[in-house]
Amino acid sequence: MTLTWQIQAQKGKDILNNSIPKQWLLPVDRLPPVSQKSVADFPQQSGLLNERELVITDMSATALVKEMKEVVVAFLKRAVLGHQLLNFATEFMAEEAIARAKEHDEYYRRTGKLVGPLHGIPISVKEHVGMKNRTCNTGYVAWVDQVTTEDSLLLQLLSNAGAIFHVRTNQPQSLMHLCCSNNITGTTLNPLNRTLSPGGSSGGEGASMGFRCAPLGIGSDIGGSIRCPAAFCGVYGFRPSSMRNSLAGFKLAASGQETIHGVAGPMASRSIEDLELFQRATLEQEPWNIETSLVPVPWKTVTPTRDMTVAIMWDDGCVRPHPPITRALRHAKEKLLAAGIKVVDWEPYKHQHGWEVISSLYYPDAASKQRELLAKSGEPARPLSEWAFSYSRSTPLSHPEAWVLQEQREIYRDEYHALLNQRGVDFILSPTYPAAAAVMGESHYWNYTAIWNLVDLPSVVFPSGITVDPKVDALTEQDRKYAPRDEVDEREWRKYQDPERYEGASVGLQIAGRRFKDEETVAAAKVVEEIIKGDSREV
Amino acid sequence: MTLTWQIQAQKGKDILNNSIPKQWLLPVDRLPPVSQKSVADFPQQSGLLNERELVITDMSATALVKEMKEVVVAFLKRAVLGHQLLNFATEFMAEEAIARAKEHDEYYRRTGKLVGPLHGIPISVKEHVGMKNRTCNTGYVAWVDQVTTEDSLLLQLLSNAGAIFHVRTNQPQSLMHLCCSNNITGTTLNPLNRTLSPGGSSGGEGASMGFRCAPLGIGSDIGGSIRCPAAFCGVYGFRPSSMRNSLAGFKLAASGQETIHGVAGPMASRSIEDLELFQRATLEQEPWNIETSLVPVPWKTVTPTRDMTVAIMWDDGCVRPHPPITRALRHAKEKLLAAGIKVVDWEPYKHQHGWEVISSLYYPDAASKQRELLAKSGEPARPLSEWAFSYSRSTPLSHPEAWVLQEQREIYRDEYHALLNQRGVDFILSPTYPAAAAVMGESHYWNYTAIWNLVDLPSVVFPSGITVDPKVDALTEQDRKYAPRDEVDEREWRKYQDPERYEGASVGLQIAGRRFKDEETVAAAKVVEEIIKGDSREV
Repeated sequence: MTLTWQIQAQKGKDILNNSIPKQWLLPVDRLPPVSQKSVADFPQQSGLLNERELVITDMSATALVKEMKEVVVAFLKRAVLGHQLLNFATEFMAEEAIARAKEHDEYYRRTGKLVGPLHGIPISVKEHVGMKNRTCNTGYVAWVDQVTTEDSLLLQLLSNAGAIFHVRTNQPQSLMHLCCSNNITGTTLNPLNRTLSPGGSSGGEGASMGFRCAPLGIGSDIGGSIRCPAAFCGVYGFRPSSMRNSLAGFKLAASGQETIHGVAGPMASRSIEDLELFQRATLEQEPWNIETSLVPVPWKTVTPTRDMTVAIMWDDGCVRPHPPITRALRHAKEKLLAAGIKVVDWEPYKHQHGWEVISSLYYPDAASKQRELLAKSGEPARPLSEWAFSYSRSTPLSHPEAWVLQEQREIYRDEYHALLNQRGVDFILSPTYPAAAAVMGESHYWNYTAIWNLVDLPSVVFPSGITVDPKVDALTEQDRKYAPRDEVDEREWRKYQDPERYEGASVGLQIAGRRFKDEETVAAAKVVEEIIKGDSREV
Repeated sequence: MTLTWQIQAQKGKDILNNSIPKQWLLPVDRLPPVSQKSVADFPQQSGLLNERELVITDMSATALVKEMKEVVVAFLKRAVLGHQLLNFATEFMAEEAIARAKEHDEYYRRTGKLVGPLHGIPISVKEHVGMKNRTCNTGYVAWVDQVTTEDSLLLQLLSNAGAIFHVRTNQPQSLMHLCCSNNITGTTLNPLNRTLSPGGSSGGEGASMGFRCAPLGIGSDIGGSIRCPAAFCGVYGFRPSSMRNSLAGFKLAASGQETIHGVAGPMASRSIEDLELFQRATLEQEPWNIETSLVPVPWKTVTPTRDMTVAIMWDDGCVRPHPPITRALRHAKEKLLAAGIKVVDWEPYKHQHGWEVISSLYYPDAASKQRELLAKSGEPARPLSEWAFSYSRSTPLSHPEAWVLQEQREIYRDEYHALLNQRGVDFILSPTYPAAAAVMGESHYWNYTAIWNLVDLPSVVFPSGITVDPKVDALTEQDRKYAPRDEVDEREWRKYQDPERYEGASVGLQIAGRRFKDEETVAAAKVVEEIIKGDSREV
């Protein structure tokens, strides 16, 4: 018996609707009008959260420690509100989360000890991270009622460390959009400007962090899927080097594919410190003893230092970033120089070639597994799914063809590292995306993030403190004369003809370090952010 | 213009013949008769090496330090002799090696310092390890005149540490035999019994080590290619965990293939200590900063301990080992128990399934690259090449089919490690091969070694001290009643109907530890060998 895909998709919506705590839903007439772009300040106006709950939900994970029941309730309320405004959730686990928080409070009262370094911290979870006895659809209608039998190892590690999962979050169909819409949950919006995308594929997490529905979240990234939503939503995200963070139990259409390794990583609403907390709390449990593909490298303690060389990549040689991005980088450069950091320019190295390699390796099978899954339910492919599938040739690569590309991937990574060594550069500071955030449906250009997936550089995204101001960031005379290098450059540049479209968007910058220098990269990001933010409000 | 493959193959022989130091060739009538099986003692009888040279070439790498010119000459002479008897070399680098040794001696006289931890140590090198400005054929006639432009990184590291390369060694066509014959150099023989195979694919290295043509050698292993030759030739070999040792610059037919990772590793004529010396000397140079696919894990110093649990795998559940192997394991068990080591039996876990996974992943392209290379020169496929190619289906796997197998590989590795943890076992002691050594052309069964490639267990092979004695190891009444489990078991068991065929062969045992516990595995191997060898001569 074949169900129409709409009936099947409705099951996914039902999961959400049945799980949403009704007592915290606001009547529609108390919500801001659909035309209101930014909803970032709405929690304060909503009347749903009390003063204390507003304070709690503005705190970082690192700052939260006890009375976790109160904390979890506060974040749940904020998440329900966020969902009404942004459509970012796929399922709430309110009762379980509150019960677990009570247990933690009880444990703390009884023993005077915390359960672990994440004692009671509410963490939102991207839907495709398999959760025991719950469905996992990965954005496919066909999988809406597939139930997972075991928690993903990463959830087990976080839970051992005391974390509490209160909400699961949305992702795009196929996971391969830098945007966040599918045929089940629909489209997730950006809290800073609801006409913009929250980014993707961890777009539900972007919205969750941006609206402070949790201090920490779990994302995954194979081409920018942690970093774009972090940048678009004005929050923090970390893409670790591959093979460090546990991935076992994340549901994927092409599971077993290894031509490009995806990674799991943390997102945080408030601080880089929280990204580090996540990494330390999970890696100190030595997951490589269970998931043996991981490298056995503990999370090292690294002392932040200003004795480093930061190279700024203004442009990747392919697509010119929009004026607010360049302004944020200029601002960063001034601040860093003033702080005595050594700053140089980064000449990009064959990024177009890099893109050809990585984009050919995403779907060596011509996206057959993805198309098969769409066909299974009969759901239509979303435009950005087709966009991503078209990266691959229409017929599968032969194995030898894929091996040639894999070899090019290895060579390119080695060459990029040799350049870093040769140029004496420790970190590369760059745009995360050509725009501050993509207008809904326009997330086309991946290579400011995907390039670091290929080179496997650990990279942190953080808000620069700069937000798009259509007056300050208006196109100059010179900007108007810019002659794009090719069609792609033109397409992206033209999107900025009307700066108003990006109003209120936050500019997130990306800092990347050498492969496996994850700790150093996170430490450098802290130093850089602190310096840049010093008085950014005045800029 | 197409050359007949024989003319092309002759070029490979010419490289050898032009490079062989003629002054050290013995006239054919002073060589032992072809019918003499063991040539292990011939250096003493040959008159080619003087007393001192015999002493030098019986030393371990660790024991050698100065007067390296004398050392290099001694090993070169022994290698020339070995080649006349065993046909193991593909090229000699006599002049360069002697010149380099002189430089080292000069440096030592001038500064009182050694060049590095491998100061002047002669190392023999498997031919497919690319060497600057020399040809590299990887056992294919088609590549006989392909010249390498740069030294493999591993050679650079060893050279930085002071090593001297004096001879390159033979490998089978396609690299995928546990034997050592090709259409260029021909067939390499086992020094302990020239009717036996030296093993493969690092068979030239096996012979080199077994005849003490160098204290250390470089092998590579994707299914047993370091460990089989080490066992067959009565010497030492180490297969590290994958992604630890540098592989860049090793020439392969299917370069870029990653379904199963091959590894490079050391072989040693005299001691496990030398294997460790090789590892430390190369990894202390942090090759992962250059070859960025490697894991950034330095070689740790581990104190050997007797506080460990060793499980003995008597049989892999598929193919029964020959009586001498079982005798060696029984002997090992007695000795270990007497020394207070905790010894248990290892129940093998789905080795047949493991073999199906790994053997399907060797050639996902149905060995198209290999066949293409054979076709290019017109050389005939050797029987054991066809044997290996037949592991794959006759048509390529689709990518999704390969992904399913890759996922099974990951699951199996995790499950195997979970079992080690659950059973509280630190190391598994097992046969290396069903026989002490394969009779020439009979190297059919891979899975005593290949299984650890799949599970990615670091594993050391060492001589047990037991050699095959057709009288002691005659089939018992009970042995004769053994009912093989299937055709494969029967094929391997039947090979032992005449124990005389294996006369004089050494039994090498294999000890394996958890992935990335390379240092612990090498340390355990030292402890186990010392205990087993205590008075093995009396056994």
